[in-house]
Amino acid sequence: MANALVPLAEGFEEIEAVSLIDIMRRGGIEVVVAYLEGEFANNLVTGANGITVQAETSIKNVIADDFDIIVLPGGWGGTNRLAEDHIVQDLLKSFQVKDKYIAAICAAPYALHKAGVLSQKYTCYPSVEEQIGRSGYTDREKVVIDGKVMTSRGPGTAICFGLAIIKELVGIESYNMVRAGTLSEFC
Amino acid sequence: MANALVPLAEGFEEIEAVSLIDIMRRGGIEVVVAYLEGEFANNLVTGANGITVQAETSIKNVIADDFDIIVLPGGWGGTNRLAEDHIVQDLLKSFQVKDKYIAAICAAPYALHKAGVLSQKYTCYPSVEEQIGRSGYTDREKVVIDGKVMTSRGPGTAICFGLAIIKELVGIESYNMVRAGTLSEFC
Repeated sequence: MANALVPLAEGFEEIEAVSLIDIMRRGGIEVVVAYLEGEFANNLVTGANGITVQAETSIKNVIADDFDIIVLPGGWGGTNRLAEDHIVQDLLKSFQVKDKYIAAICAAPYALHKAGVLSQKYTCYPSVEEQIGRSGYTDREKVVIDGKVMTSRGPGTAICFGLAIIKELVGIESYNMVRAGTLSEFC
Repeated sequence: MANALVPLAEGFEEIEAVSLIDIMRRGGIEVVVAYLEGEFANNLVTGANGITVQAETSIKNVIADDFDIIVLPGGWGGTNRLAEDHIVQDLLKSFQVKDKYIAAICAAPYALHKAGVLSQKYTCYPSVEEQIGRSGYTDREKVVIDGKVMTSRGPGTAICFGLAIIKELVGIESYNMVRAGTLSEFC
């Protein structure tokens, strides 16, 4: 059983976060959703479009050793918090040192760049590559996998990104099953 | 400004519910998310894949007159509750009598059928048409619009369904903007 950590910061993009959690769980990945300290009460975190999702634990309570992958949803508000939060930044570095997977979608590859863990080749939401200010960006693929770093582009690619994570961490059979079961033939 | 009501029942499909709410809000539709009575505390409702979302009010507090459309997310658990809840069933009938829009995705067209408001031509998640047990089903389109009833198929068509609702209730400009902004060219 693969284990995924999804940090949820105020202002996260809701389609991206929920699609990734939902698809990974359908594919047999155990997902823990962690809120950042200083966020709302009752583990509640509100996204960019006013949708509030309940996280399961604080980011303070997690350690990299318990997970195979860390997955960052996008949204600018959420991304800025992920880029500034020292626990998230330390976790990203720790995941890379321990040769674990790191995934980010939309604006969130910026948070990887901030931690110094972004892969040479990457994708992100259009124009975010200007904030990142580095070569290696491509807009030709929905999902880019470079070593153990996986990046994707936005709400419309979130299901495909979740499926790519299943293919990489669980296998092609699970990928095919979830792709068919969610009617995501466009991925 | 168009107004949408999204009833959220335990066991709802999370990608569908969140994609619809997110996309409709991006398109300028005011969305109210309502929980069913007897559900969790703090307006919290848990979906089919263990993701808990906070609703904004009880379904007891809403009236059809305040809305232009009612939008039902799928998931079998959620759909069965929507099909059995007398407030939701009465609302569906009321929306039809008042010539308002009615939308349902995945398994949820079954809840429309139960209320007697399902359109002649419709789509749904594959095999749900057997539960509905009626002609008029098509699997050739992601979104079917028949009069003021809109239906769609599953998680992979949820963004496209939200976009179709924007096109119908807000207009083509908003549709084009949200489609491009969410990188949903596959719709």
